[in-house]
This record gives sequence, structure tokens and C-alpha cells, in this order.
Amino acid sequence: MLKYDDALDLIFRALADPARRAMVERLTSRPATVSELARPLPMSMPAVFQHLQVLEGAGLVRSEKVGRVRTCQIEPRALRLAEAWLEARRTTWETRLERLGEVLSQPSSPDANGERSR
Amino acid sequence: MLKYDDALDLIFRALADPARRAMVERLTSRPATVSELARPLPMSMPAVFQHLQVLEGAGLVRSEKVGRVRTCQIEPRALRLAEAWLEARRTTWETRLERLGEVLSQPSSPDANGERSR
Repeated sequence: MLKYDDALDLIFRALADPARRAMVERLTSRPATVSELARPLPMSMPAVFQHLQVLEGAGLVRSEKVGRVRTCQIEPRALRLAEAWLEARRTTWETRLERLGEVLSQPSSPDANGERSR
Repeated sequence: MLKYDDALDLIFRALADPARRAMVERLTSRPATVSELARPLPMSMPAVFQHLQVLEGAGLVRSEKVGRVRTCQIEPRALRLAEAWLEARRTTWETRLERLGEVLSQPSSPDANGERSR
């Protein structure tokens, strides 16, 4: 199994391409054959296969060949791993904002009041 | 302003590196100078500056130089953009699972029942 950091490297790198995101987007609705995945994309079949390899390498998609047809489906765990990383960053950021808000809403210290009433 | 797809390309590419993720992680807690960001990272200052450029190019971080000190802070909007994309994929996927669950929990058709009771 990949280390957490290596897994995130591969997932984020795989998602850094609009064609691969379009393939992921398509597969979250339902499984698809490689031809179905390729249809809306302005590229050759070898290019589609290369993108598919990157997605499979990142654990975002898995595919299975039955006869001459390769069918792909999403692997939701990899998507969740990336989302969880981003969510953890947002939580840290929001906690920091809340703390800042609390500090700013606290009444001024006696010294500061004294200063102000002079 | 960047197009949505171009923005996501840059954000996901920027996050596909453990050192850059470490910098983002550090900055969600509080702003930091470039030296503070560099301290835990096993790399030269020019390498840190290169990573910082990638993060700034993706809109994940902004920095400001006052005197000789450059201070960096997080730009939460870019993180939210990436999280929203992943969340939308998860929602589609979960809706599909729910529908599948509904279909499977429906009582069998009369024909099928007839078939079974024979």
C-alpha cells in the first residue's frame, strides 16, 4: 500500500488535468467503457488510455476487461482521501478565524479602558 | 481571472507535492515568514522560493515583503474551490449509491414472486 503522502501526490497530480477530471466526473455517475469515456474528449484513444493509466495509478479508477471491452468505475476512497486533507486544512483555518473573532470581541483590558477614558 | 478549469489545474498541481502541502498546512494555522516556512523543510532557500511561487501562482498563498522579511498567508478561497469540486463528485457518487440501494430494497415484481413460489 502507498504511504499517505505518496498517495496524495498521485491523487492531486491525477486531478490536475481537465480531461482526467472529466473522466472522474463521468464515472461518479455510473461505470463506463473506455469508448464511452473517450467520446466527449477531443483526443486519440491512446491519449485516453494514458489518462486512464494515471487515474488507475492514483487509485481513483479501476478498470476490468471482459472480452474486448474494458469497463471503468470510480474508486471513491481516493477521492475521499483528497477531500479529507482539504477539509482538515479548512477546519484549522476556520478555528483560527473563530479564535481571532473571540479575541477581537473581548472587552478591552482595564489598562486600555483607563487609557481611553483619560 | 483564471477560468475555473485552469484554476483547478494549478491548485491540484500545486498540492501534488508534500513540501508544498506542508507549507499550506503550516499557513492554515497562522501566517509565517519564508524562513519559518523553510525551517522544517529539508531543502535550500531557492527551492523553498520555487515552491512558494507555485503556491502563489495557484492562488493558494499570498506573500508580502516588508523591509527584508517576506510574510506568507493562506488564501482560503483556492482551497475551498478544490474541496467543492471533490465534494460535488462525492455527492454524485453517494446519490448513485442511494438509488442503487432503493432499487435493491424494492419488493420483487409479481412475476418474480410467482417464479419463486413455484
